[in-house]
Amino acid sequence: MAMYIVSRRLSSGSTTSQLATSLRFATCWRSYSTSFREERDTFGPINVPSDKLWGAQTQRSLQNFDIGGERERMPEPIIRAFGVLKKCAAKVNMDYGLDPTIAKAIMQAADEVAEGKLNDHFPLVVWQTGSGTQSNMNANEVIANRAAEILGHKRGEKYVHPNDHVNRSQSSNDTFPTVMHIAAATEINSRLIPKLKVFHSALHSKSVEFKDIVKIGRTHTQDATPLTLGQEFSGYTTQVKYGIDRVLCTLPHMYQLAQGGTAVGTGLNTKKGFDVKIAAAVAEETNLPFVTAENKFEALAAHDAFVETSGALNTVATSLMKIANDIRLLGSGPRCGLGELILPENEPGSSIMPGKVNPTQCEALTMVCAQVMGNHVAITVGGSNGHFELNVFKPMIATALLHSLRLLGDASASFEKNCVKGIQANRERISKLLHESLMLVTSLNPKIGYDNAAAVAKKAHKEGCTLKEAALKSGVLTCEEFDNLVVPEKMIGPSD
Amino acid sequence: MAMYIVSRRLSSGSTTSQLATSLRFATCWRSYSTSFREERDTFGPINVPSDKLWGAQTQRSLQNFDIGGERERMPEPIIRAFGVLKKCAAKVNMDYGLDPTIAKAIMQAADEVAEGKLNDHFPLVVWQTGSGTQSNMNANEVIANRAAEILGHKRGEKYVHPNDHVNRSQSSNDTFPTVMHIAAATEINSRLIPKLKVFHSALHSKSVEFKDIVKIGRTHTQDATPLTLGQEFSGYTTQVKYGIDRVLCTLPHMYQLAQGGTAVGTGLNTKKGFDVKIAAAVAEETNLPFVTAENKFEALAAHDAFVETSGALNTVATSLMKIANDIRLLGSGPRCGLGELILPENEPGSSIMPGKVNPTQCEALTMVCAQVMGNHVAITVGGSNGHFELNVFKPMIATALLHSLRLLGDASASFEKNCVKGIQANRERISKLLHESLMLVTSLNPKIGYDNAAAVAKKAHKEGCTLKEAALKSGVLTCEEFDNLVVPEKMIGPSD
Amino acid sequence: MAMYIVSRRLSSGSTTSQLATSLRFATCWRSYSTSFREERDTFGPINVPSDKLWGAQTQRSLQNFDIGGERERMPEPIIRAFGVLKKCAAKVNMDYGLDPTIAKAIMQAADEVAEGKLNDHFPLVVWQTGSGTQSNMNANEVIANRAAEILGHKRGEKYVHPNDHVNRSQSSNDTFPTVMHIAAATEINSRLIPKLKVFHSALHSKSVEFKDIVKIGRTHTQDATPLTLGQEFSGYTTQVKYGIDRVLCTLPHMYQLAQGGTAVGTGLNTKKGFDVKIAAAVAEETNLPFVTAENKFEALAAHDAFVETSGALNTVATSLMKIANDIRLLGSGPRCGLGELILPENEPGSSIMPGKVNPTQCEALTMVCAQVMGNHVAITVGGSNGHFELNVFKPMIATALLHSLRLLGDASASFEKNCVKGIQANRERISKLLHESLMLVTSLNPKIGYDNAAAVAKKAHKEGCTLKEAALKSGVLTCEEFDNLVVPEKMIGPSD
Amino acid sequence: MAMYIVSRRLSSGSTTSQLATSLRFATCWRSYSTSFREERDTFGPINVPSDKLWGAQTQRSLQNFDIGGERERMPEPIIRAFGVLKKCAAKVNMDYGLDPTIAKAIMQAADEVAEGKLNDHFPLVVWQTGSGTQSNMNANEVIANRAAEILGHKRGEKYVHPNDHVNRSQSSNDTFPTVMHIAAATEINSRLIPKLKVFHSALHSKSVEFKDIVKIGRTHTQDATPLTLGQEFSGYTTQVKYGIDRVLCTLPHMYQLAQGGTAVGTGLNTKKGFDVKIAAAVAEETNLPFVTAENKFEALAAHDAFVETSGALNTVATSLMKIANDIRLLGSGPRCGLGELILPENEPGSSIMPGKVNPTQCEALTMVCAQVMGNHVAITVGGSNGHFELNVFKPMIATALLHSLRLLGDASASFEKNCVKGIQANRERISKLLHESLMLVTSLNPKIGYDNAAAVAKKAHKEGCTLKEAALKSGVLTCEEFDNLVVPEKMIGPSD
Repeated sequence: MAMYIVSRRLSSGSTTSQLATSLRFATCWRSYSTSFREERDTFGPINVPSDKLWGAQTQRSLQNFDIGGERERMPEPIIRAFGVLKKCAAKVNMDYGLDPTIAKAIMQAADEVAEGKLNDHFPLVVWQTGSGTQSNMNANEVIANRAAEILGHKRGEKYVHPNDHVNRSQSSNDTFPTVMHIAAATEINSRLIPKLKVFHSALHSKSVEFKDIVKIGRTHTQDATPLTLGQEFSGYTTQVKYGIDRVLCTLPHMYQLAQGGTAVGTGLNTKKGFDVKIAAAVAEETNLPFVTAENKFEALAAHDAFVETSGALNTVATSLMKIANDIRLLGSGPRCGLGELILPENEPGSSIMPGKVNPTQCEALTMVCAQVMGNHVAITVGGSNGHFELNVFKPMIATALLHSLRLLGDASASFEKNCVKGIQANRERISKLLHESLMLVTSLNPKIGYDNAAAVAKKAHKEGCTLKEAALKSGVLTCEEFDNLVVPEKMIGPSD
Repeated sequence: MAMYIVSRRLSSGSTTSQLATSLRFATCWRSYSTSFREERDTFGPINVPSDKLWGAQTQRSLQNFDIGGERERMPEPIIRAFGVLKKCAAKVNMDYGLDPTIAKAIMQAADEVAEGKLNDHFPLVVWQTGSGTQSNMNANEVIANRAAEILGHKRGEKYVHPNDHVNRSQSSNDTFPTVMHIAAATEINSRLIPKLKVFHSALHSKSVEFKDIVKIGRTHTQDATPLTLGQEFSGYTTQVKYGIDRVLCTLPHMYQLAQGGTAVGTGLNTKKGFDVKIAAAVAEETNLPFVTAENKFEALAAHDAFVETSGALNTVATSLMKIANDIRLLGSGPRCGLGELILPENEPGSSIMPGKVNPTQCEALTMVCAQVMGNHVAITVGGSNGHFELNVFKPMIATALLHSLRLLGDASASFEKNCVKGIQANRERISKLLHESLMLVTSLNPKIGYDNAAAVAKKAHKEGCTLKEAALKSGVLTCEEFDNLVVPEKMIGPSD
Repeated sequence: MAMYIVSRRLSSGSTTSQLATSLRFATCWRSYSTSFREERDTFGPINVPSDKLWGAQTQRSLQNFDIGGERERMPEPIIRAFGVLKKCAAKVNMDYGLDPTIAKAIMQAADEVAEGKLNDHFPLVVWQTGSGTQSNMNANEVIANRAAEILGHKRGEKYVHPNDHVNRSQSSNDTFPTVMHIAAATEINSRLIPKLKVFHSALHSKSVEFKDIVKIGRTHTQDATPLTLGQEFSGYTTQVKYGIDRVLCTLPHMYQLAQGGTAVGTGLNTKKGFDVKIAAAVAEETNLPFVTAENKFEALAAHDAFVETSGALNTVATSLMKIANDIRLLGSGPRCGLGELILPENEPGSSIMPGKVNPTQCEALTMVCAQVMGNHVAITVGGSNGHFELNVFKPMIATALLHSLRLLGDASASFEKNCVKGIQANRERISKLLHESLMLVTSLNPKIGYDNAAAVAKKAHKEGCTLKEAALKSGVLTCEEFDNLVVPEKMIGPSD
Repeated sequence: MAMYIVSRRLSSGSTTSQLATSLRFATCWRSYSTSFREERDTFGPINVPSDKLWGAQTQRSLQNFDIGGERERMPEPIIRAFGVLKKCAAKVNMDYGLDPTIAKAIMQAADEVAEGKLNDHFPLVVWQTGSGTQSNMNANEVIANRAAEILGHKRGEKYVHPNDHVNRSQSSNDTFPTVMHIAAATEINSRLIPKLKVFHSALHSKSVEFKDIVKIGRTHTQDATPLTLGQEFSGYTTQVKYGIDRVLCTLPHMYQLAQGGTAVGTGLNTKKGFDVKIAAAVAEETNLPFVTAENKFEALAAHDAFVETSGALNTVATSLMKIANDIRLLGSGPRCGLGELILPENEPGSSIMPGKVNPTQCEALTMVCAQVMGNHVAITVGGSNGHFELNVFKPMIATALLHSLRLLGDASASFEKNCVKGIQANRERISKLLHESLMLVTSLNPKIGYDNAAAVAKKAHKEGCTLKEAALKSGVLTCEEFDNLVVPEKMIGPSD
């Protein structure tokens, strides 16, 4: 550590506070480097921990943006997407004259990034340049140094050059939106949608399992006409099904890649066709139908595609909030709530109250939904604030969307596995409530007339007895007649 | 009408679509003018309905901003505040040399505006210039024409001049923020706070009325240890009390008036002391402690005071949402819900289901809360988007806040009057649920030990019987012992 | 008025405060009724102004929900959609046995509602029951009374019955979501989309008009490489184009109608096929492809379709905010801003500063965008708060969405007509800025090498001269060479 | 690793997917444990990594809530606050009979938690039970095991019992809100406020430094009357000053601690006075004026205090967004922007464009502001969704607020240090723009009359020359006269 201090002082006249920063970050990285190498950029030389692959620009950003600490690092899907993109760029650049030896080394190094093997070499936080330039340079520097190593050269010597080779034909302004799209589309396809599908399937199974359980309906939170528990769950099932559709609907814009637009969308410094080729390469690499963006100016200056997808997630969040709220209320009790559902017990509720099952999965899920709604506003604000040729809220927008995607996927999976799958109907309770309810009186109308029926209902309400008891006491019909008429099972659909 | 059409065509070559607009607006004003007079501004002459007091700039804005229709007109509290401000400005301007005859006529005309008598002469919508310039000119024009009439002159002749006399020493850039503050502070003091206080008082009364009703508590929507219904309501009472405090806390910034800053905050074209005098005049006129803004640059360029107050309203909305949700759930039933509260029945629920009382006041209130949360985001977005010396989201910010203030006040009053005041405790039901609950087993621990107590609770849960039944069956204690031990009334506070 | 007071006192013991309310509302309706008739519902008799068609339930709601005043009335598109729905319901009910004479009278009366002729008979505010029951009853009562009149009967006699005839086979719980969908889909198709298309077309025209104007690009608000003004506008054009797509994408869910679900989604009290027939009738009546909802439980209990559409509007709002911000900044000046665009002058800017054109249309539009973002949060909160079989934030959700639709459509049209169409490029200024900029130095690299080029740029920056001056002073190349190399027109696309 | 797998299989029949989870988490902890010990709770035994201090309930939660991965762990300030609270609880519990030996060991262990030394033993994520129960148990388990070790006992033997000793007189329902308040109040006092103060001070210094630099004002983004750069910065300074006040204003509610309310707010299982004593102990420990909550029901069931504080942060975010936007626009250029400010250059902008300084600190800060606005909505949604005696969005609410606090503090500090402190005025550019502007014509009115002045201004605008040139060409006044009249320095305040 001492060496570090000394060398930093010599090289950049670090003050005590900068020193503290460096120390803090050193701690963050959980690496107590004892040696450093010099890296350079147009600002001059700067010391970098020897065991890290990053270069001068990354190091500078680390010192200039001490915001939020380690948990605010650029999300892993972005890092991995940089691996994918830089690999594809090297591949396509070979067609345009990049030395194949260097290109192949870059591709190998980029693959390591794509596989998450070099995550520890991406220390930058989200709260940096709004173009994500510094994370692009982080990727360029790490891949260049790693590729150089692969070819037998030392770190920092720039045998493979971060700009001239790794970033060739690229600008941060088109690479960062490109990795945003790759990361989001990948997370949607590999994480969110599969998990929502499993969740949908579990709800659908419950809907089928419960299809014959007739229960009281509730509107305005008040007793209403009956439906089956299966019908109730079919509503949830449909919500999730449509939610999946909504997310999928946003993918066409997400599959549009900005790559090839370079600094302002014109494609300056690229060759014709580069944009199409690189989108094709990314599509091949990811097995997702990426295409080059129809209009590169839009693709750099706005992130409407992210606002759009976030809007879909926001809708999914409202659906899941509704479902989870219903399930916890239907499972409330055990004695003093609605008690129609029995939720699986996953952890000790209370040592003294047997039967107390806290709906903890509902709680985790609804908290996630609230955060997704919040992230949506953050993305909206960021998305609306672009200026001229570049929106500079990119890392925030990307991070908030990836956060929402991850949380919604994981929480849906957890909810499905630890709650929905194990839900049981409390048939006894459901039946008791159904038959105690007063709205079944409707069925008596044809037989005894509206006025008599109303009188029966009012009597039951006033005396706190069942409809049947009230009807029999009123003498308007017999026990058999009552049982023949009051059949909730016939009230759950239109009549012929 | 024909005359209007013809004259408009002559004066401004209106196209068919403009014509349609004019016709639509004519309809909006519910005035079918058959004659028009010419008014002028620096753009030249323009026809204005003869029976309206506004002038050329208002007429132009009417045609240029055909957005949202009549219900999007600038809110009345803003119009009235213009009356207050223009009266005070005339008064103070007399000290600085304004002809007293003209000043007094302005004051009289402004008073009519302040009293809402001239509302029909303020046709402009919110969605206009972001500085509210056109509404300031609307006020200037109406007051100038009205003052001229008072002095025996004709409309449109500018005997009293909208700019030179009515707007003297003022700019839209300082008048509009000033009326925003006057309108908001007035609405808070005269509408919101009094209504919240009545609401608070009603909740407090219920809290006292229900202080001896012991009931089951619910956490995670699950049965928990008991509390009194009065304690439960004391939580709501405290929320509203703090809500009132929160709103009041924001008033000091709201009492700061921008007037005297003129175009960019420097006060160019005013005399020294004008700002302090006009704030004093407004304070006197409104009986509210307005002062001149400490920093006029902040007062024009930002509306943080509105974002702050909106934040307080947002907190009040979260409180009221919680309270209304609880009340409708506690009042759910009549047979298949929690049924602890009996809510007043204000309108027919259903012709066939006696006892079905829809918690309609809860619904109106919670809808209002959702809108207040939404308006808060609109205000936040508008507040964050100022540029340089002027925030130009003023009319939207003002309107959204006044909307929230009005809705929260009115809905609280409606909820108090039509719901809270009439809430009754369903003592029988509360008692039944309390005594059926299993958590009372806690009280047995000291006597029969934790293991036996748990066994009793589990037995009751499994067999669906009461704790007492389970305890007696288990033979671990007698009926008298049980009754002596299980006393929920002793579980509602700390022990000595 | 006196009569009213007396009769109300007799019938319902109105207190002074209720009286005040009645008076206030009487004022609101702008009708000073001097006579009243008695209407009845299950709560008993109540007086209604003689000249109004509404009945007892409407009157009660008017008194129970004194929230927000006249400008908070249920939006007109909802009222009109009730007209459409009730007409279709009568038509389909004829197939199921409704007396054709009555049905036809209902259809005629409903048509008048659909055409907006009876708007004055719909006095209820948004902030009522969350199911919209009272507005459904308002429609039933008005149509019943009007149909009775058509058939030669008196108001209040219920010759045509609001429930049995007009509301036949319906419940508020399915009619209100149905009119929500009809109203929103109609507004989208007839107002928003056409206006956005005109806006898109205007932007596209500008993009073509400006295709040869090369200008400086700006990233991070800083000078960057050039592009054409046409390219810049093509980005805006694409944003609006995608915005239209985004809104259209949400229509399939919006075209699903809840009608036929009745109280809880089961369709109790309807005949099989009613749901499909009524959707077909609405489709025919509106010329929009409405279908019956795939799952009625979802359609009543959630309003995800509205949250989804609102999400699309939110994305459109972010796009328009970006566009309007760019245009006002590019048009800033006239001397001390960017000054690349000349915006049309629609109203006096300032009497002393010629050339001061305030970008008022940009301001109106961006204020609208902020409100749309806020309404989106309100809709999200409302949409997430449904309980069991019914979401009871319906009127708020509907109103907020219709508000956003109307504002976005109108503001886009206003912006197009009063701003975009008239935008001119300030070619001289654009050219001056372009040629003064330093980033053109890039073009010199191939000829004089990176180091010399950088030296030229640094010299220009330091000395505040042009690149050309610096280059010539440096002696590294001739005037002709410079002019041959530095050609911004060659920097606006990829190379061959 | 193998051992772990085997033992987990034996103990709980883990499926392959559970296994995968365990492996993933094992990786997360960055601990490759090779041995495990058995811990127990009322659900039975479960294996826990030997080198970790947590117990059975923590382990279960780890497996049941696989949501979001490592970066979603409960925030460190919460963990540390648990250390503070548990230390104080042990101390107060001694007064009520807790064995001093055990109490002191608990205090020592809790101190280690408070100092952050045991962070690695708190693996749980935010997305768990909404009451934070599992994190409370995590604290209890870690402290119990550590205290037992201190006393020479083994982990897992419960010599010190997590519930009976560490959690004595407490419930998760009061501890979690208590640590929320401790954590937030601490972060506000130790991180946010000091950083905002430094930021405020830097802005104030700039305001003083720039007090004599007269510049063009801009309203509607258009040229307006002049002000000094110092005045402009004084607006920012005031915004931040008020922002600090706004946050401080919310502290009184934040200083109210729920501790002593136990399960539902009644304080069951505590002794009288416990609540007051523990608040006093926490106050002493933290040097912050914590008090016991006035109403414990409100303190458990709602988190209005967090919504309130978040509202203050939201206001600060709107202020900072405004300031950072202004600064980047005023610093735009170097040639084609406004160019009035020179921002410090912290990292390479571009290798070819000298003078290109990207306003990266503005970008980081504005991204933070957008996220804070989003978090505010998440907190609002969570805060509004409490049910009955307990709000179960606690961990989300706490985390979002702490996130906002941290980001705002750090970003303000970074912005101050890396941007504001180094801002220089580009005096030459400012002067040039000021003198080129046309609005200075106002000063000529008294001398040459409004009409002549307007003619001069129009001539200058039309011919693109300076006012002075136009005035001299017009022959209306001499060079000396012009220079005497046109003095922007006299236009920056009210006149005498």
